[in-house]
Amino acid sequence: MPAMKVKGQAFRSIWFDADRDAVRVIDQRALPHEFRLATLESLDDFVTAIRDMWVRGAPLIGATAAWGLARQMRRDPADAALARASESLAATRPTAVNLAWALAAMTEQLAPLAPVQRAAAAAGAAAAICEADVRINRAIGEHGLALFRQLTAVPGRTASATACPRPLNLLTHCNAGWLATVDWGTATAPIYLAQAAGLPLHVWVDETRPRNQGAALTCWELDGAGVDHTLVVDNAGGHLMQHGQVDLVIVGADRVTANGDVCNKIGTYLKALAARDNGLPFYVAVPTSTIDWSLADGLADIPIEVRHGHEVTTLSGRAASGEITTIALTPPGTAAHNPAFDVTPARLVTGLITEYGVVEASAAGLADLRRRIR
Amino acid sequence: MPAMKVKGQAFRSIWFDADRDAVRVIDQRALPHEFRLATLESLDDFVTAIRDMWVRGAPLIGATAAWGLARQMRRDPADAALARASESLAATRPTAVNLAWALAAMTEQLAPLAPVQRAAAAAGAAAAICEADVRINRAIGEHGLALFRQLTAVPGRTASATACPRPLNLLTHCNAGWLATVDWGTATAPIYLAQAAGLPLHVWVDETRPRNQGAALTCWELDGAGVDHTLVVDNAGGHLMQHGQVDLVIVGADRVTANGDVCNKIGTYLKALAARDNGLPFYVAVPTSTIDWSLADGLADIPIEVRHGHEVTTLSGRAASGEITTIALTPPGTAAHNPAFDVTPARLVTGLITEYGVVEASAAGLADLRRRIR
Repeated sequence: MPAMKVKGQAFRSIWFDADRDAVRVIDQRALPHEFRLATLESLDDFVTAIRDMWVRGAPLIGATAAWGLARQMRRDPADAALARASESLAATRPTAVNLAWALAAMTEQLAPLAPVQRAAAAAGAAAAICEADVRINRAIGEHGLALFRQLTAVPGRTASATACPRPLNLLTHCNAGWLATVDWGTATAPIYLAQAAGLPLHVWVDETRPRNQGAALTCWELDGAGVDHTLVVDNAGGHLMQHGQVDLVIVGADRVTANGDVCNKIGTYLKALAARDNGLPFYVAVPTSTIDWSLADGLADIPIEVRHGHEVTTLSGRAASGEITTIALTPPGTAAHNPAFDVTPARLVTGLITEYGVVEASAAGLADLRRRIR
Repeated sequence: MPAMKVKGQAFRSIWFDADRDAVRVIDQRALPHEFRLATLESLDDFVTAIRDMWVRGAPLIGATAAWGLARQMRRDPADAALARASESLAATRPTAVNLAWALAAMTEQLAPLAPVQRAAAAAGAAAAICEADVRINRAIGEHGLALFRQLTAVPGRTASATACPRPLNLLTHCNAGWLATVDWGTATAPIYLAQAAGLPLHVWVDETRPRNQGAALTCWELDGAGVDHTLVVDNAGGHLMQHGQVDLVIVGADRVTANGDVCNKIGTYLKALAARDNGLPFYVAVPTSTIDWSLADGLADIPIEVRHGHEVTTLSGRAASGEITTIALTPPGTAAHNPAFDVTPARLVTGLITEYGVVEASAAGLADLRRRIR
């Protein structure tokens, strides 16, 4: 199964480099201006990489935490060290549930073992989490592609890809691409598979302020893969939908509750409202590891990370000199509030595209899914 | 009636400077980083100032066009020159109806006059449009303040300003402030009057991508006036409303149809949807000169300006060096689509705050208003 490519070379967002005996990641803070790799060695490296968003995206955060725990087991495999490392990694970011999920899965495998066995077992478990992520996203892609085919077959379109009167227009928010996972992405997996299948499509990419993951990461990804796309500001999606320029919205998620509420990048809720107001489908592509079975009411119960206001009042990019430059956008001293996620109530979600297929975003739909997982 | 102040000195956004025998404006492109004045002399100066957004905001565009026509009458007061100047000014920006309104009002007064009388009459008429704008906004402010008082008197709040349990939380989009008008602003007029009356309030300011008029202009205005405010990205409003942190939304408009559809800065529609979903009032503050009585269906009939994609892919601000610097946000060659306005259907609008009072955003409400104007 081919990994995504950067200038012709296959890359994942995280991998174990045997030659260096270290974990390597793409330092996503430098994108799209520079393709920079980072080597993670100490537990502090992993904590910093997650907390300061060298890596981001719920599945990739989980995979990075798993590798962080694994590498720490080589230094100190004692019970106390396992617990401390897990705690440090869990505290990096509050919203994505994959982080807690990956740490729990690792701990469940490692705790029963003798400390001397833990380092090797942990490396195997972390690698397995990464491989599973790739397989899961590929499966999400297949289910999403089937959905895209159904949507191109609606009246006014033709079922045949080549005779399709116009491309299927998707709108996505933030980056739920391969950079947010180990490979393929969640929301982008069906896009990449559709492209491979010759299904004409075009992606509207929400800029996704304040950190501009859409403009910086999704545009870079789609550009690299040759997928037709157009950047818009986050404000534009409703207008595009009102004018028939969007066929469906597809996003990822950081946490989904047992009744189908979806926590995702701030602003997702506004796009879901606009999709509903314009009778358009709103789909969320998620691995089942993103589902928090312990929570029901997303609005009341999901902790929303509030990040520093300087992410709103300043912005970095490439100056004419080529230098990465940070500029201030506001009068000095302007206060900014910066919640990083919001919750889209299940009632606004058309369906969840999981590795098990498309399920209804409801308590019943998720209960049914859970029975299939067990 | 005091004009707004900049560092203690009274300023309007446009005025006739008798000493210089020229019209002066605040060059808003430099804000918030630099307070720069510009002198407009030739017709080309006025056309450039409107088209390139040295001035912006529907009422101010109208006032600037009126002065542009007036100054041109001193150079050439012939019928053909009047028509040509009006056409050039009308072609600068397509969406705000105040532009056409001001030009029509000027032409109606000037056309019957002998050319030799036109220069003096035009200067008087342009000055009168500016004075009327100030009066109108002040009246909008009084009606809006009455509304704010009603909202602070709802159960859970107390009617008394000083005993109010927490400030009234407004959310606004773009800049409908004094910088968008001649003075006071439309959406901000009630805010300034409420502040003067001691009514505790706090304003959430939408950044308003792509041109960041919220971050750059509204924050600068409110900061200058000492009004408590917090900047948020455009994505955040829905989340704030879901969590009870917004009491009402108040925005301006560039054109309102005879059935109450509201065309305003791109992204306004998304905030109206969120207000509706959370049971919150969504008000639009407009002078009646912003109403286009000739149109009914805003979505079908209002021309939406599409501006250059570089407004989305690049952004300017103050670098650490103090220099105003433009940075690129995307991979080179990224295509961007940049519609500047959207239309909020009347069904989502709680009311229009006009200089005649608060009216229902409906064909009936507007017909009734029109009878009062005549």
